[in-house]
Amino acid sequence: MKNRLSRFRIIDDGKKFKRVFDLDDPKPKGLPNGMIKNEELEEIEPGTSFTLGGKKFFVLSCTLKDYIMEYLHRKTQIIYPKEAGYILLNLDIFPGRKVGEAGTGSGALTAIFSRAVGERGEVFSFEKRDDFTEIIQKNLEVCREYENIKFFNRPLQEVDIPKDFDAFFLDMKFPWEVLPKVNSSLKPGCRLGLLLPTTNQVTRIISTLQASGYFIHEVSEIFRRSYKLNAERFRPEDVMTGHTGYLVFASKLKKTEEGS
Amino acid sequence: MKNRLSRFRIIDDGKKFKRVFDLDDPKPKGLPNGMIKNEELEEIEPGTSFTLGGKKFFVLSCTLKDYIMEYLHRKTQIIYPKEAGYILLNLDIFPGRKVGEAGTGSGALTAIFSRAVGERGEVFSFEKRDDFTEIIQKNLEVCREYENIKFFNRPLQEVDIPKDFDAFFLDMKFPWEVLPKVNSSLKPGCRLGLLLPTTNQVTRIISTLQASGYFIHEVSEIFRRSYKLNAERFRPEDVMTGHTGYLVFASKLKKTEEGS
Amino acid sequence: MKNRLSRFRIIDDGKKFKRVFDLDDPKPKGLPNGMIKNEELEEIEPGTSFTLGGKKFFVLSCTLKDYIMEYLHRKTQIIYPKEAGYILLNLDIFPGRKVGEAGTGSGALTAIFSRAVGERGEVFSFEKRDDFTEIIQKNLEVCREYENIKFFNRPLQEVDIPKDFDAFFLDMKFPWEVLPKVNSSLKPGCRLGLLLPTTNQVTRIISTLQASGYFIHEVSEIFRRSYKLNAERFRPEDVMTGHTGYLVFASKLKKTEEGS
Amino acid sequence: MKNRLSRFRIIDDGKKFKRVFDLDDPKPKGLPNGMIKNEELEEIEPGTSFTLGGKKFFVLSCTLKDYIMEYLHRKTQIIYPKEAGYILLNLDIFPGRKVGEAGTGSGALTAIFSRAVGERGEVFSFEKRDDFTEIIQKNLEVCREYENIKFFNRPLQEVDIPKDFDAFFLDMKFPWEVLPKVNSSLKPGCRLGLLLPTTNQVTRIISTLQASGYFIHEVSEIFRRSYKLNAERFRPEDVMTGHTGYLVFASKLKKTEEGS
Repeated sequence: MKNRLSRFRIIDDGKKFKRVFDLDDPKPKGLPNGMIKNEELEEIEPGTSFTLGGKKFFVLSCTLKDYIMEYLHRKTQIIYPKEAGYILLNLDIFPGRKVGEAGTGSGALTAIFSRAVGERGEVFSFEKRDDFTEIIQKNLEVCREYENIKFFNRPLQEVDIPKDFDAFFLDMKFPWEVLPKVNSSLKPGCRLGLLLPTTNQVTRIISTLQASGYFIHEVSEIFRRSYKLNAERFRPEDVMTGHTGYLVFASKLKKTEEGS
Repeated sequence: MKNRLSRFRIIDDGKKFKRVFDLDDPKPKGLPNGMIKNEELEEIEPGTSFTLGGKKFFVLSCTLKDYIMEYLHRKTQIIYPKEAGYILLNLDIFPGRKVGEAGTGSGALTAIFSRAVGERGEVFSFEKRDDFTEIIQKNLEVCREYENIKFFNRPLQEVDIPKDFDAFFLDMKFPWEVLPKVNSSLKPGCRLGLLLPTTNQVTRIISTLQASGYFIHEVSEIFRRSYKLNAERFRPEDVMTGHTGYLVFASKLKKTEEGS
Repeated sequence: MKNRLSRFRIIDDGKKFKRVFDLDDPKPKGLPNGMIKNEELEEIEPGTSFTLGGKKFFVLSCTLKDYIMEYLHRKTQIIYPKEAGYILLNLDIFPGRKVGEAGTGSGALTAIFSRAVGERGEVFSFEKRDDFTEIIQKNLEVCREYENIKFFNRPLQEVDIPKDFDAFFLDMKFPWEVLPKVNSSLKPGCRLGLLLPTTNQVTRIISTLQASGYFIHEVSEIFRRSYKLNAERFRPEDVMTGHTGYLVFASKLKKTEEGS
Repeated sequence: MKNRLSRFRIIDDGKKFKRVFDLDDPKPKGLPNGMIKNEELEEIEPGTSFTLGGKKFFVLSCTLKDYIMEYLHRKTQIIYPKEAGYILLNLDIFPGRKVGEAGTGSGALTAIFSRAVGERGEVFSFEKRDDFTEIIQKNLEVCREYENIKFFNRPLQEVDIPKDFDAFFLDMKFPWEVLPKVNSSLKPGCRLGLLLPTTNQVTRIISTLQASGYFIHEVSEIFRRSYKLNAERFRPEDVMTGHTGYLVFASKLKKTEEGS
């Protein structure tokens, strides 16, 4: 993000209302009980609170996670933070890395990768569908802190890309279709990650990866269970997310295409 | 890590043996069926395999996660990758950030923070126990890719530290003891994270945080369920980790010390 | 239930509508696309389907579980089947047993106990609140297959009860209040079960049970994760129940009251 | 069981040793620190404790669940109590019902069904493998409280059985092979349950059931998470069972064989 100080997260005491606001946008901000002018919001320091229409609102710093969960325009199911953090560590995504991703979806994971690889890193993101290009471009525009994202509104298979990717992530319906391209782009020994919602896709990709000479590290699911914030009556929330997808992590072996 | 190309992860076909080896260390490496000389290992390209004593071994790139899980000397329960990734996102730890951590434990999370904040970032880590200082220092020495870790073998309360931390993480038995120090070090609106193994600690910290004027975002647990890698008989592993700890995330409000 | 053949469960193809109907009740039955007369429903055999307003409905046998989940009038959170079945086995509730329960709640577990102990068994159920006595009595009336339920609309502590209970189950806010009564009613070595929603209640009851000389077998939670019924796209449901309560099972030791 | 008072469960304070003993067996009983004569054990009342070799042992009543988990001879993976209780409720297994089961396995679920249906009920159990017939027969002999189990050491397909089963449960590798037989034995509208360890089996049985005209109620998994019994440091156990199997419940529709 160009200027992170220009973003705030406003949340009420009971957490019923929570939203991220951008000071760069001069329009007044709508809150549950009224409007607040952008100039007024600029005067409010982070970590403090204000009262509007009899209701207390806290002004907190905006994390990239908040930004993605509450501000990004979504056209697709996004990858949740519980998975995104685990993906960062399993794909070894850190400052300076060159990372590929297909498909882009709403750009949530693209934004996370972009921040993690920093100004010396690179993120190549591919989305073949063209029905929400505009939303992706808008999302990536507001999210990008660094000029390190290359977005391609074309199928990965059809784009001519470098051969030295440090990691690749696939979040698409038929990932086996792009595997030959990934094989020739990923450095030997480096990591490929995938998210797949159904067991049918997982068993098919296991077979394909094994036949293509990949070393599969794991197939796993990540769950998050959250608790009510009451010290006298401490208990989990009544409802939790039951499923997002199965994560698959594998390492590319050398010359897998040639069937060594 | 000074030179990541000097580290490899060697793993057998059945994943019974997996270990990280360091080429900077000239000693021969012990494998299940024999020894391999360091010079020999240097000749083997990542992404390929070799055979020793009739057994096939793959040479893969070593992620920081592998390195921590398989190479780090442990004196304490370390924070697992499933939690570490989620912590990175919730504390908004990315290149250039200044992050505090107490206690250091075995240094696993310190290493992850160090990589994530990069060369322009800073990690301050505090450990009051002095019975495993040597192991921490050795772990942090081999882990550090950047000169961005400041390790203090003293209680956080007793160290004079800057007032502009972007995030703080506490993994200690009595975190309420260091809260006043954290209050005065963390930037207003910024994030504090904690890992606590028991519900008694969680209910106590909820009360303390609420009384100290923190805004608590969430208390949650992260689970990982892994699957057997058999496409014809796809099923979860028989056993899973049942508990590591409860994660707590909160934002510091301004003048919490003065009890506003 | 007096005549189980008189009850049916009607469910549409897509499971959007599912309801239990009682042929003993002569009123016409309301379905999503119209009404069906009781006499018409009587003619439809279980295991078949009929079409009403262009929609297909299946007529299935009604299990006690269906009956409880879909027909019982609820004033309180009921105990779910995932817990109820586990309770039956842990309290060793089978034909001929004498079982105590406090509080009755909506009578769901009472009905399950009644069926399980059969005509030679006995279920004593206590509910101190009087704001939904009518609903309990109606629920127990329609549920009872056997004349084996004794319902007391009074606090357990105040009722003079036998000393030879085979098992006792407590689902109430302050179970420690009735523990002395349970102690003197439960056969030595036999099982007490409890359901408690918060960890604060659990830690308190662990202390109380240990101080009262109970042998605690386990504290556990039961989760159920359900899947979408699509063979080509097999995957878990997006949302699951995150919490109902903690189950506690203990055995009464002899003369626990006298503090042996 | 013929005389339940003749069975006890002996457990030490720390739950490291727990075993079920049978007073009908005149042999002395082996405990960690020594032997105890059967006559001595007969004198000890349930709910009390005794000391042997400096160690305290509690004598508790033996539930059928304890008996199955700790006494039954196992040749196969048994169905756990967390699943067994849920199966009882979903198949509506209560006093007086006629229930079928294939395969018998070690007889654990057979014993649970036998107890639940009581003296007026019937359990037909089929096991085609003959390599552990002796163990099954021994297990069912000691477990049976009622003369209500009919055991067939033959494939279900080959046995001529009644047409009026109230419920059927299949725990076998290729359940689709016996489905035509189940179709003709189960009363219309009544329930079939299955336990299957792999997703490949589940997707195949979903297709088969749908093609055979079954109404599928659910596919689900049951998890149990247990906690350490320490009121001051309350926390889940470090390790939990990650998988037993997927449960499938369906209702037989009329004339499914004829493909109505």
